Amino acid sequence: MTADVQKLLDKVRIVLIRTTETGNIGSAARAMKTMGLSQLVLVDPKEFPSAKATARASGADDLLANARVVDSLPQALEGCDLVMGTSARLRDLPWPLLDPREAAEKVLQYAHQPGDIAVVFGSERSGMSNEELDHCHFQVHIPANERYSSLNLAASVQVIAYELRMTLLSADGLDIEQDEEELAGRDAMERFYEHLFQVMQGVGYYRPEQPKLLRRRMKRLFNRPMMTHAEVQIMRGFLSMIEKYLPRS
Amino acid sequence: MTADVQKLLDKVRIVLIRTTETGNIGSAARAMKTMGLSQLVLVDPKEFPSAKATARASGADDLLANARVVDSLPQALEGCDLVMGTSARLRDLPWPLLDPREAAEKVLQYAHQPGDIAVVFGSERSGMSNEELDHCHFQVHIPANERYSSLNLAASVQVIAYELRMTLLSADGLDIEQDEEELAGRDAMERFYEHLFQVMQGVGYYRPEQPKLLRRRMKRLFNRPMMTHAEVQIMRGFLSMIEKYLPRS
Repeated sequence: MTADVQKLLDKVRIVLIRTTETGNIGSAARAMKTMGLSQLVLVDPKEFPSAKATARASGADDLLANARVVDSLPQALEGCDLVMGTSARLRDLPWPLLDPREAAEKVLQYAHQPGDIAVVFGSERSGMSNEELDHCHFQVHIPANERYSSLNLAASVQVIAYELRMTLLSADGLDIEQDEEELAGRDAMERFYEHLFQVMQGVGYYRPEQPKLLRRRMKRLFNRPMMTHAEVQIMRGFLSMIEKYLPRS
Repeated sequence: MTADVQKLLDKVRIVLIRTTETGNIGSAARAMKTMGLSQLVLVDPKEFPSAKATARASGADDLLANARVVDSLPQALEGCDLVMGTSARLRDLPWPLLDPREAAEKVLQYAHQPGDIAVVFGSERSGMSNEELDHCHFQVHIPANERYSSLNLAASVQVIAYELRMTLLSADGLDIEQDEEELAGRDAMERFYEHLFQVMQGVGYYRPEQPKLLRRRMKRLFNRPMMTHAEVQIMRGFLSMIEKYLPRS
């Protein structure tokens, strides 16, 4: 991950309005930190700080220690260039609606703006009011099961934070880093195929006078996984062991 | 949402291995239901059913009531065509790795296969062992903060379930790509591996008393291409021909 992605994640504020279950604040902090977010803003929480929040944060207590507590939503949004409010409930006056992926793409578009970016979450019981949504540029809607759309507050934070991180990372052109093993080149693969067909012929499974379908099928199979050198060596070792049992031709 | 997407979501099993915090089972059920998943399978849970799980499920208690409890992972995976294991830890012998979005796309490719699709989650403390991952075609890795990657179990389930729903919904209406040939299911692959290791042992290439690395390497190789039924048949025909040359054991 490049510094650019982290810099952008650092600009994202998660704003929780009047959270009633204090444990949820801790779980939300944990969800944020797993995805590299750090700015937590609490608007008029019922109780904070609390032992329960700290317990649930489970190692993300630095986010709780740095959390800002404010009285009103406008205070929480000061200095923001982009504000998005999460809500499952559609409004009579429909707000510009984004799904989480579109919201993350919106964040990308704001990457070079100087201000911060806020994602707002309403209280557990009542969600976001129309007045609160008025402060937002967009409404973000998680496309949940129509018959059971009640995501837990921290689960909603997790989904939004995950989508932000995923989208920013993929825009960054980076994939998950994996120890790369050397792949077998074309020549090694050709030698492997010759060896394979030789043994297949040796045991009487493949007859060269027949149509070439079997050869093609085998190549199609073993080309798909992009075999590593080590794997080709194993397979050839196995073939050599088989050959010892075959009559000399 | 069309019936097709729901039908595919109905085929997805969430498999939780040896969950220690019983509340997490309830939170996982809630996370699943919000995204339209319904099949919960518990492998040797520490405690189930429990009042705490039911309280946390918060309206998703039907998933708990219908949950299957089994003793071992293989039992949980019976009848599955595609098995993916979630794990943050990279392995010495790297398993084919997908991020959640790629995993969801893999599920799309299996839309027309008859069997179920399993996503496996390890226990809270120890995650998935190498042996458990051996049962999986792919490892799914949530691209978390490298310095703090400890997603809560239910949060991981929420992310995977969300990504499945999002990807399926956005593919909906499009022509879901279909492999023309039927893929070999998990059961057929298991029989193929048994046959392969038997012959490898027969020719003296594989010694079961040795570490299991060879078995793992072979599984990793043959899981990657997603073998078709026809390919498994060819390979098994080849193995049977080899066996004719081996001394009877």
